Amino acid sequence: MTKKVHNYSAGPCILPAEVMQKAAEACIEFNGSGLSLLEMSHRSSAFVDVMEKARALVKELLHVPAGYQVLFLQGGASLGFYLSAMNFMKKDGKGAYVNTGTWAAGAIKEAKKLGKVEVLASSEDKNFSYIPKGYTIPSDADYLHLTTNNTIFGTQFHDIPSCPIPLISDMSSDIFSKTIDVSKFDLIYAGAQKNMGPAGSTVYIVKEDALGKTGRDIPSMLDLPLQISKDSMYNTPPVFPIYVAMLNLEWLKDFGGVPAIQKRNEAKAALLYGEVDRNPLFKGVVATEDRSLMNPTFVLNDEALTARWDKMWKEAGISGIAGHRSVGGYRASMYNALPLESVQVLVNCMKELEKGA
Amino acid sequence: MTKKVHNYSAGPCILPAEVMQKAAEACIEFNGSGLSLLEMSHRSSAFVDVMEKARALVKELLHVPAGYQVLFLQGGASLGFYLSAMNFMKKDGKGAYVNTGTWAAGAIKEAKKLGKVEVLASSEDKNFSYIPKGYTIPSDADYLHLTTNNTIFGTQFHDIPSCPIPLISDMSSDIFSKTIDVSKFDLIYAGAQKNMGPAGSTVYIVKEDALGKTGRDIPSMLDLPLQISKDSMYNTPPVFPIYVAMLNLEWLKDFGGVPAIQKRNEAKAALLYGEVDRNPLFKGVVATEDRSLMNPTFVLNDEALTARWDKMWKEAGISGIAGHRSVGGYRASMYNALPLESVQVLVNCMKELEKGA
Repeated sequence: MTKKVHNYSAGPCILPAEVMQKAAEACIEFNGSGLSLLEMSHRSSAFVDVMEKARALVKELLHVPAGYQVLFLQGGASLGFYLSAMNFMKKDGKGAYVNTGTWAAGAIKEAKKLGKVEVLASSEDKNFSYIPKGYTIPSDADYLHLTTNNTIFGTQFHDIPSCPIPLISDMSSDIFSKTIDVSKFDLIYAGAQKNMGPAGSTVYIVKEDALGKTGRDIPSMLDLPLQISKDSMYNTPPVFPIYVAMLNLEWLKDFGGVPAIQKRNEAKAALLYGEVDRNPLFKGVVATEDRSLMNPTFVLNDEALTARWDKMWKEAGISGIAGHRSVGGYRASMYNALPLESVQVLVNCMKELEKGA
Repeated sequence: MTKKVHNYSAGPCILPAEVMQKAAEACIEFNGSGLSLLEMSHRSSAFVDVMEKARALVKELLHVPAGYQVLFLQGGASLGFYLSAMNFMKKDGKGAYVNTGTWAAGAIKEAKKLGKVEVLASSEDKNFSYIPKGYTIPSDADYLHLTTNNTIFGTQFHDIPSCPIPLISDMSSDIFSKTIDVSKFDLIYAGAQKNMGPAGSTVYIVKEDALGKTGRDIPSMLDLPLQISKDSMYNTPPVFPIYVAMLNLEWLKDFGGVPAIQKRNEAKAALLYGEVDRNPLFKGVVATEDRSLMNPTFVLNDEALTARWDKMWKEAGISGIAGHRSVGGYRASMYNALPLESVQVLVNCMKELEKGA
């Protein structure tokens, strides 16, 4: 390695070094086959094993109950927006949504192409700096759709509302970061490129008996029952991204699973938010109770310090904490593979800035 | 490497060894950045450069004319079946198709979900062993869709019919194998995992002014004008598969481009088909004039030789020539990266079998 980088990229994001190492080895030769994984048939027993292991690890790590299926598909959450509505919104039905920012708005936009959408609540009035609460979930909607973590704004649902209708969640940026009760959801989907693996695959966790009720003629690639019947291989899957996701889930299992990583994620968040709250030069930008453990956002109180601050963290080897253009300031994405040490380096920079201010 | 494998996999398929090597290096560290390509933002200038280079190489290698755009999307040809119809079939219009086998039938199936389909010709009467000719293309259809190479059956269009309406082609298994006149087509799409790269990305080459005429409300991820406006990055693209495709296209350029690889592909096909025709133990299964240069299919005349023949080629290090279950016999997929030497090894086995028979 050229230098030590503290990788705070919002996604694709940091993955464990041992995962990269094994990924590199598979590019040269996979499991003594004489072939690179990049040139092997997806129907080979070697890759079918990878796919089955990846699906099984998702089930094991998230304690997915019986009656649910796990799929590795393509298209990211952006295709998931449409796919989820297509598989759950009845032909003359409607979907209910909570608008917590860019990605929730994207889901709403795609669902409107299929039918009626009811936005139950929105935090747009305060630039999505909080999670709306206290809304009524209509019993006549086909489902409620939530975006559990809002990567851009740095908010996160810490309580999932109890829901009398099917519940769908885009968990792209917090799946595998903390324990969840899968039985509360009828569909969970997530782009892999945060806590699950590199870009290029998308996981779906779906309650089988919730499917097949829309009366729609669904395109094959978006048809969850069809994908289930083909064991997640209706067509050629993204072989390498799924393999690296499998390696990453193995790493998570070896780490102690989701409860162990949650503990570390909580320690990382406590360390950073603690400093944001203590240090008079910084402040957080979202409601304290809705802060994301994955994507803390904060700003400098005095913008005149920007140049000095930016120079300081860059020199410390920190990468990727510039905030999204729609929020400004800073966003320190702290996904599973980011070590506590990297957060300490960032906090030390903040303290240094204070000393010199 | 454990042993030398002659990789005849029908796809994902053989890629050049130097491509695997560079892919492996990028998993560890990309271009001196201190980061693996697997953990880098797709918005980083390093990856934006990769995407732009990949798109430019497609344009250069295929002499894509002005007015066309190149995109790297997801979902494989199977999503392309639906996507192509969605972007070209008017709301009350119809699509025209030629049914040359499994993948063409898949395209027909998806298009029927959107509207009317006219199947102009089919070779189903002879298990798709030839390319239909002499049909009339209806001037009132919104487009004609062809599958230029039929991976499973081993047939290939050697002449593209002149077409008075927009022409769409699924070129998944022969793109970059021979020179084509892109200006004949309004849309070309192809899953990457044959001659372009590993599984996980799909290339679209589209005539811009053919788009936006259907009156449909297209899902964002399937909306070609939207994808064009976002430079092929509406959402997180499959970073690593696109990088490896870029490496592979660089390799093709260094090889001498498409004309040079076409010459080698023709030599490989001449060598194998020559032996199939000469050797009394074998015969081809498709019409001679429609034989695929990518996926030659053949059978043993005497099935009693099967066990001996299968043992022989396996011992020679040949992998992946068992025929698809819907055709039986053998299929020797000879994609760009397969060296002539591997074909010679197969031909030598066929000669050996004849000697011992």
